[in-house]
Amino acid sequence: MSEQLLPIIFKDDHLQILDQRQLPNKIVYNKRKTIEEVFHAIKDMELRGAPLIGITAAYGMYLSVLEFKGDSKALLNQLKDNGDYLVKARPTAVNLAWAIKRMIATAKRNHEKEPEEIKKELLSEAVLINKEDVEICKSIGEKLLTLLKKGNGLLTHCNAGALATYQYGTATAPMYLGHERGWKFKIFTDETRPYNQGARLTAFELSEAGMDVTLICDNMAGVVMSQGKVDAVIVGCDRVASNGDTANKIGTMTLSVLAKEFGIPFYIAAPTPTIDMETPSGKEIPIEERPHEEITTFKGERVAPENISVYNPAFDVSQAENITAIVTEKGIVYPPYKENLAKLMKG
Amino acid sequence: MSEQLLPIIFKDDHLQILDQRQLPNKIVYNKRKTIEEVFHAIKDMELRGAPLIGITAAYGMYLSVLEFKGDSKALLNQLKDNGDYLVKARPTAVNLAWAIKRMIATAKRNHEKEPEEIKKELLSEAVLINKEDVEICKSIGEKLLTLLKKGNGLLTHCNAGALATYQYGTATAPMYLGHERGWKFKIFTDETRPYNQGARLTAFELSEAGMDVTLICDNMAGVVMSQGKVDAVIVGCDRVASNGDTANKIGTMTLSVLAKEFGIPFYIAAPTPTIDMETPSGKEIPIEERPHEEITTFKGERVAPENISVYNPAFDVSQAENITAIVTEKGIVYPPYKENLAKLMKG
Repeated sequence: MSEQLLPIIFKDDHLQILDQRQLPNKIVYNKRKTIEEVFHAIKDMELRGAPLIGITAAYGMYLSVLEFKGDSKALLNQLKDNGDYLVKARPTAVNLAWAIKRMIATAKRNHEKEPEEIKKELLSEAVLINKEDVEICKSIGEKLLTLLKKGNGLLTHCNAGALATYQYGTATAPMYLGHERGWKFKIFTDETRPYNQGARLTAFELSEAGMDVTLICDNMAGVVMSQGKVDAVIVGCDRVASNGDTANKIGTMTLSVLAKEFGIPFYIAAPTPTIDMETPSGKEIPIEERPHEEITTFKGERVAPENISVYNPAFDVSQAENITAIVTEKGIVYPPYKENLAKLMKG
Repeated sequence: MSEQLLPIIFKDDHLQILDQRQLPNKIVYNKRKTIEEVFHAIKDMELRGAPLIGITAAYGMYLSVLEFKGDSKALLNQLKDNGDYLVKARPTAVNLAWAIKRMIATAKRNHEKEPEEIKKELLSEAVLINKEDVEICKSIGEKLLTLLKKGNGLLTHCNAGALATYQYGTATAPMYLGHERGWKFKIFTDETRPYNQGARLTAFELSEAGMDVTLICDNMAGVVMSQGKVDAVIVGCDRVASNGDTANKIGTMTLSVLAKEFGIPFYIAAPTPTIDMETPSGKEIPIEERPHEEITTFKGERVAPENISVYNPAFDVSQAENITAIVTEKGIVYPPYKENLAKLMKG
């Protein structure tokens, strides 16, 4: 049994960033100190996962002015410039822009203080952003644990794990918390074609943490369920519509249908920011298509015929009626979702 | 649009065998003439698929005595020796032993004839075995076509195709026949993890034949169905129990559940020899597990963490109640299967 591997480690004057591109074959932490180094770590996918990108950007913004020698006004200007630069690392990542804005707002709020004081406030804010994420994940995990029992068989898909957040992940949070308490879950993780996040990341992080995890191909989930080995399916989400329809990594919807077939509860782990009350249903969620090469090649080598048509949707939508509960940091939401999600988001 | 690629081509004094191990990247036919060459073609998996192995063995037995110079008795002895040798190429392949026996029986039946006459009878028998397989596939295809319409979207899994038989395949038979008649099906083929037969073989053979075929990952079948792009799911089978429960390549059962969810007919293409009236239900069908390396490595390279548990069942069982019809060369069987399969097999 080993300790949990964290995707980033903050060390006073630099970050140690786990290079996720090299997983599961190599565990390599890279020292990242300058804003350029943090920029490239994010841009070049050394790390991924919306919450983790936000946390990393917050620390990066602090580090970017740590050795700054000018006055407070100059420091604020420098920080803004660094933010304008860093946000371009992954322009569509909402959490990246959000964390950068929060760091700049912190500096503005404290602009009358001495430069060294402002730096301390920036560090506090980055630590707070980090802690908030841990708390959200932990809270989701605690609530999911109330729905589970010791020794349960759990199935998850893709990576809604610590490697996408900081410490507990979302779908994996009850697994980490249960593991700390000796609940001895038996976990199955789908390979998650075509990008294999389940094999490369989820299987990796859970087994590194000492959990009992079994890797299966996506098309084996039904068999494992039919054999009575799964007591609950727990997955993350990319967006929850106001009626409860939930978009997540391709393959999730199939699991929701199989769970219904075999009478197994199907839970969504959803931080409240992923609940989008402006989207009425799954029909309004656009399904992004990804490059064909993800399916037709492996590390540059062709594994399917040339000139063939390929369809590679990145996400699918699980219908609200096939979801047993949506578990947020603020509470567990049951059907009818339209009513109960509205209550949660107002409350 | 191109001609169909046959897995073997008989040329008077030798066989041209398509090396399926090199698909889809290279189309290589190897000339196989001697019994040793045919032995290695089968043993070393240059070709696979139970019916195709049987056909190849039949031609191989004929070729093995083509240049034999002794008398009729000596020829019969030589043929028996060759059979004893060839059957060891894949000892568990039922069709291999069956075809060899049939060839020896042909020689025995004609033992009073001249050696050259016996050789002619052997060639006729090999051609007959080949034709019978084509007829079974064609008959299954014709019956399936009565359940389909022009322009239908069809989904298949694994390779129950021409590359496993000779010309039409089983699940693919209506696709070839429909293609000949300009029915313009839109075909989806699952990748079929972990061995990727759908990507490597089915996508290859159907696109080579000029059909409209789209490759998807196994976990994308649900999305394609939910989008109304699939009018029927057609798959092959490894064994049909007397109650209609059907074992086939892992992932098939999930398709049967998804088809039910989306109101899509789910058809099994089943030559009658795969219907096993001695097996009462799917519970009695043992599920073979295959090596973990199929999932954890790709061409020898590690793609999943070391020391991880893996579950790799090769087959799963689709429940009879989720199967719309079982289509055999002798007729289409509808529920109740227990009753109607018994009628078919007696008739």
